[in-house]
Amino acid sequence: MAGEYDRILRQNERFIEAFDRSALTAAPLRSIAILTCMDARIDVEDALGLRVGDAHIIRNAGGLASADAIRSLVVSQQLLGTREIVVIAHTKCGLHGADEAALRRRIEDSTGTATDMGFGAFDDLDAMVHRQVEILTTESALLDVPIRGLVYEVETGRLREVR
Amino acid sequence: MAGEYDRILRQNERFIEAFDRSALTAAPLRSIAILTCMDARIDVEDALGLRVGDAHIIRNAGGLASADAIRSLVVSQQLLGTREIVVIAHTKCGLHGADEAALRRRIEDSTGTATDMGFGAFDDLDAMVHRQVEILTTESALLDVPIRGLVYEVETGRLREVR
Repeated sequence: MAGEYDRILRQNERFIEAFDRSALTAAPLRSIAILTCMDARIDVEDALGLRVGDAHIIRNAGGLASADAIRSLVVSQQLLGTREIVVIAHTKCGLHGADEAALRRRIEDSTGTATDMGFGAFDDLDAMVHRQVEILTTESALLDVPIRGLVYEVETGRLREVR
Repeated sequence: MAGEYDRILRQNERFIEAFDRSALTAAPLRSIAILTCMDARIDVEDALGLRVGDAHIIRNAGGLASADAIRSLVVSQQLLGTREIVVIAHTKCGLHGADEAALRRRIEDSTGTATDMGFGAFDDLDAMVHRQVEILTTESALLDVPIRGLVYEVETGRLREVR
């Protein structure tokens, strides 16, 4: 039942034929790291005008400054030299206004396992962006680099500056 | 000194002009979630033949099945209906063979803060892919869906099946 998996392998065969990026090295050419949501509507490279090799792109549900995102940013800075961070949340995010208790019940109903997992649901989009930037700004394992916060509007494609 | 940030905003102005994706909703059209590395050389959509709206894309340093990746996958499945997972590690990853103790020393030297952070360094690429798939397969909060593991070869663009 892995229909999409098989399709991906076929698509990759075509991709290989035109592949011309073998000269790129691991360090991002533009020394920037992007932290954003996993949302399917965000093509990060297209929306930000980035090319392959330009930037580290870290993505999770919401675009949260989680411990794992911080681990990734530390690796990005210390091993691969990035010196700028941009956090991008977006409109119509699945976590915006999500009911965490209901989500936990749904997990228990569908998997048979009770969980106390937290999901990062939020009620105020701009406040959420400010909070993620604040978490990164005060994280002692990260370098003192410029950190900006944006909202990507899935309705228009526009990046709106928040912080 | 946020030169790349300003460039991103300018690039986004051009992107908006041609924007035609406002009809997409949050649920990925192909009901698939991709977990991969933040590496700048991986354009996930291009390499996998995915279009905007097709898939959730979760990215962190290494493409690890971290607690935060699992949180994201749970949200992806329970709120947005994905029913397939593909894990993609890659050749020449910064964490492949990385010295974690040296990395912690480097953080302390550059930030003045001692840390006991772990980074997910690994020595065997294929074994690493197997381990991430295993973690997701045995995670009780996730649904019983197909989970495959691949290696993206940054030298050729090829996706190699591991599991």
